[in-house]
Amino acid sequence: MAALRLWAVVEYDGTDFAGFQVQARERTVQGDIEHALEAVTGQSARIVGAGRTDSGVHARGQVIAFSADWRHGTAVLQRALNAVLAADVAIVAIGPATSDFHPRYSATSRTYHYTILNQEWRSPLWRRTAWHVTEPLDVDKMAQASRYLVGTHDFTTFGRPPEGRGDGVRTVTAAQWQACDNVLTFAIEANAFLYRMVRSVAGTLALVGGGRLPAEELPEMLQARNRSLIRQVAPAMGLCLTKVSYPVSEGVMQ
Amino acid sequence: MAALRLWAVVEYDGTDFAGFQVQARERTVQGDIEHALEAVTGQSARIVGAGRTDSGVHARGQVIAFSADWRHGTAVLQRALNAVLAADVAIVAIGPATSDFHPRYSATSRTYHYTILNQEWRSPLWRRTAWHVTEPLDVDKMAQASRYLVGTHDFTTFGRPPEGRGDGVRTVTAAQWQACDNVLTFAIEANAFLYRMVRSVAGTLALVGGGRLPAEELPEMLQARNRSLIRQVAPAMGLCLTKVSYPVSEGVMQ
Repeated sequence: MAALRLWAVVEYDGTDFAGFQVQARERTVQGDIEHALEAVTGQSARIVGAGRTDSGVHARGQVIAFSADWRHGTAVLQRALNAVLAADVAIVAIGPATSDFHPRYSATSRTYHYTILNQEWRSPLWRRTAWHVTEPLDVDKMAQASRYLVGTHDFTTFGRPPEGRGDGVRTVTAAQWQACDNVLTFAIEANAFLYRMVRSVAGTLALVGGGRLPAEELPEMLQARNRSLIRQVAPAMGLCLTKVSYPVSEGVMQ
Repeated sequence: MAALRLWAVVEYDGTDFAGFQVQARERTVQGDIEHALEAVTGQSARIVGAGRTDSGVHARGQVIAFSADWRHGTAVLQRALNAVLAADVAIVAIGPATSDFHPRYSATSRTYHYTILNQEWRSPLWRRTAWHVTEPLDVDKMAQASRYLVGTHDFTTFGRPPEGRGDGVRTVTAAQWQACDNVLTFAIEANAFLYRMVRSVAGTLALVGGGRLPAEELPEMLQARNRSLIRQVAPAMGLCLTKVSYPVSEGVMQ
């Protein structure tokens, strides 16, 4: 029987994972899913992910692809995997992929959300999913600064290319803040991101919101292409990979 | 020095607590806060809470009262307590109470929220704070059934009085459902609640939403005053004590 090529959308609470990418002695999302696939299909499995999220980073829309000999349909495979996977990771959608589908190379855009809890006292209920910032933040200033990021720029100041290869030019198509009571949520979409880019951007925008960096300095920071200008990288727990988009022809539905 | 009487608002993630009320060999919210008070003030401490939430139930607005010899102001006490308390519990507000203030007896109303995640696949990011219901729920039917609960009724069908004393008559002032994508949130406010009342109501309303109980049966269920009519009690993780209200004269601010 020929192996099926499949895509799947994965959600995880990154708190207790040492990131997405498999590592020898650490618990990782990739490692857990590969073990689940092996348990369910009886075959050795290797998955590829759209984004190598860091330790502590969450996902609602991570996309993976893998091959498997499986004759019971994708719905049964999803149920079987979710029965084996731990409570902090789940397959939320699954389907057949074209043979040349690659979660990273086929992607046309990624969306991340970064959440800040802006209040004086720490919150037990937000502690896993938001960065607690006590200094009052001016979300209008943060929104103003975000607008400088939209468009095609060299983002070398804010991160490095994957595996240190290629340039730092990326196209940001949306960068917006929303405030709901004390919860500030940043949504940023780009064709692709540099390593640590969203956390460097969120940390920098928090400096703007706290009045410690003028919004107007963002264009200069971009032009400098100098990572040492980053004074604050926002912590992992506020970050979530929410969506990866593909051409309609790839058939990946979210 | 005379002991100060103080109120405090407490937030906690109930997942890893065996409920609010102190127990000999279990970790409880009351036990943790009393230990923190003893560590900070050097005096033995006893707190009283507005609601004895069950194991796994959360709170954003639990109210406690206690007495302490403390001369450094309430803001310093709050900071010191939060430095000692674990990450899943925090004092979010604190202030001076009148000598006769009692979190339970002085309260004029309580508000609980119950959250249902209504989708086919389990969600790692909601697993601690929402009840996962796979059967499609009709939130309009649930809202319709909720309206029968508003007003002064004998709620004996839905719960028992604290310590088995007193009658089951309570006044529900609001009972509303809100749907945001797959997340259904129920907010219910009453002068007071019976034990397990919100979870019995939420479980029953989920039966209505799933088409397994007509909304019109709610008045009959109330009139029967018979707890054996409850076919489904919603699990603890979806429940959160969000607010306890007091007469303005008590000075408790949230």
